[in-house]
Amino acid sequence: MTKSDKPQLYTSLSPALLPLYDVSSSIVVIIDILRATSTIAAALANGAKCVIPVDSVAKCIEIGRQIEGITAGERDGKIAEGLEHGNSPLEYPREFIEGKTLVLTTTNGTKLLHMALEKGAQQVITGSFNNLDSVCRYLLAKGQNVLLGCSAWKDKVNIEDTLMAGAVVDQLGDAFEVNCDSSRMAQALYQDAKADLFGFMASKQASHYHRLMGYGLEEDIRYCLTPNLVNVLPTYAEGKLTHDLTFG
Amino acid sequence: MTKSDKPQLYTSLSPALLPLYDVSSSIVVIIDILRATSTIAAALANGAKCVIPVDSVAKCIEIGRQIEGITAGERDGKIAEGLEHGNSPLEYPREFIEGKTLVLTTTNGTKLLHMALEKGAQQVITGSFNNLDSVCRYLLAKGQNVLLGCSAWKDKVNIEDTLMAGAVVDQLGDAFEVNCDSSRMAQALYQDAKADLFGFMASKQASHYHRLMGYGLEEDIRYCLTPNLVNVLPTYAEGKLTHDLTFG
Repeated sequence: MTKSDKPQLYTSLSPALLPLYDVSSSIVVIIDILRATSTIAAALANGAKCVIPVDSVAKCIEIGRQIEGITAGERDGKIAEGLEHGNSPLEYPREFIEGKTLVLTTTNGTKLLHMALEKGAQQVITGSFNNLDSVCRYLLAKGQNVLLGCSAWKDKVNIEDTLMAGAVVDQLGDAFEVNCDSSRMAQALYQDAKADLFGFMASKQASHYHRLMGYGLEEDIRYCLTPNLVNVLPTYAEGKLTHDLTFG
Repeated sequence: MTKSDKPQLYTSLSPALLPLYDVSSSIVVIIDILRATSTIAAALANGAKCVIPVDSVAKCIEIGRQIEGITAGERDGKIAEGLEHGNSPLEYPREFIEGKTLVLTTTNGTKLLHMALEKGAQQVITGSFNNLDSVCRYLLAKGQNVLLGCSAWKDKVNIEDTLMAGAVVDQLGDAFEVNCDSSRMAQALYQDAKADLFGFMASKQASHYHRLMGYGLEEDIRYCLTPNLVNVLPTYAEGKLTHDLTFG
């Protein structure tokens, strides 16, 4: 395969940068490591029927009522008023979530997902360290252009989403044309960090690391930074994320 | 000095991210390594009276005529039609530029500079590897909040501006409160790269590196990536960049 035959891979480090990329022929990978896309992977891997991502507590309550789903979301590290569960992937073991629908409030990730759809993304999937290999195998098999979309935090670039993008670039860089400084920066950062992702986050005083540690959520952070705990490939269609059974 | 007494330092990796930062009490450092802020440092260090940054060729011609300045700017690696000189710092030795005014066309850097002014930045200066230590000494002496503003390329994050931000964070990180993932990422990248900035740019297939190499401008790139060639501190006021004589 010559260089020009390869599909292209780009990384958008923040939703505020997404408008710079043409995603109309791309698979967009939504990355929101702490903790939305980690929780989505856990819930679907443990048999949830689907996950419905919403961007507000009010919508979460409304949809939860309509479809008798599990409502989940946090504000300042606590379950948001009116919802039943939190944002931790550890809250969704098989014995609880199997066969159910999870309505998940997630601000940054849902915003990015809707932006990608509005820009005409061909396919939207979600990625986390927990399902890293599933994501990479899927993207390799599809052979289409890829945009790695970091959800960031209120549009501010964050380390953990960048690291995940870097992990994908590190695995797929040879199979894709990567003419994208953000992707190369993410890859370099990941190569620095991969031996100890948790330690890297701590040493860099990552803002989200501090926020969650302040809420006593070290176990969550460690879980979300662990590669390949689950084989699952969450794909988005008609408002829902479901596990693509042909992958994962 | 306790942590909370320290001034704050942030990095904006792209003009598209600048709106996220409150710069009203900050010194904003405009970074446009290849090649605007490197050329500004060279011209002022070599005795230019001032540099007037403009965002279009038409404005450059108009102002150049009004003040009998040297007009400079490139499009696609060649001197733009109607202008006299290019964007290379090597074009502005003392015997040519001393005592003259340089009217410099620079799209990305000028855009960011005007954004910073509109957002009420307390002071705007420009930074490059070539005047790295001057910038750091200035920021340390001022002791105010700092926003490192990467000019990027049409809003896309680039490696070289990020590396320069990282170099500043690496020098000043202890004297400032750095609660900013972008700054920490830039610093980690710089620590990776500092032993051989040119080699790092080449190995990461940096997009701007490729663009300029394609124009035969390797010497420019090597120059622009060389720390501390000049002692100069370009500060902006009333449309002009001049050398702050108390520094540099």
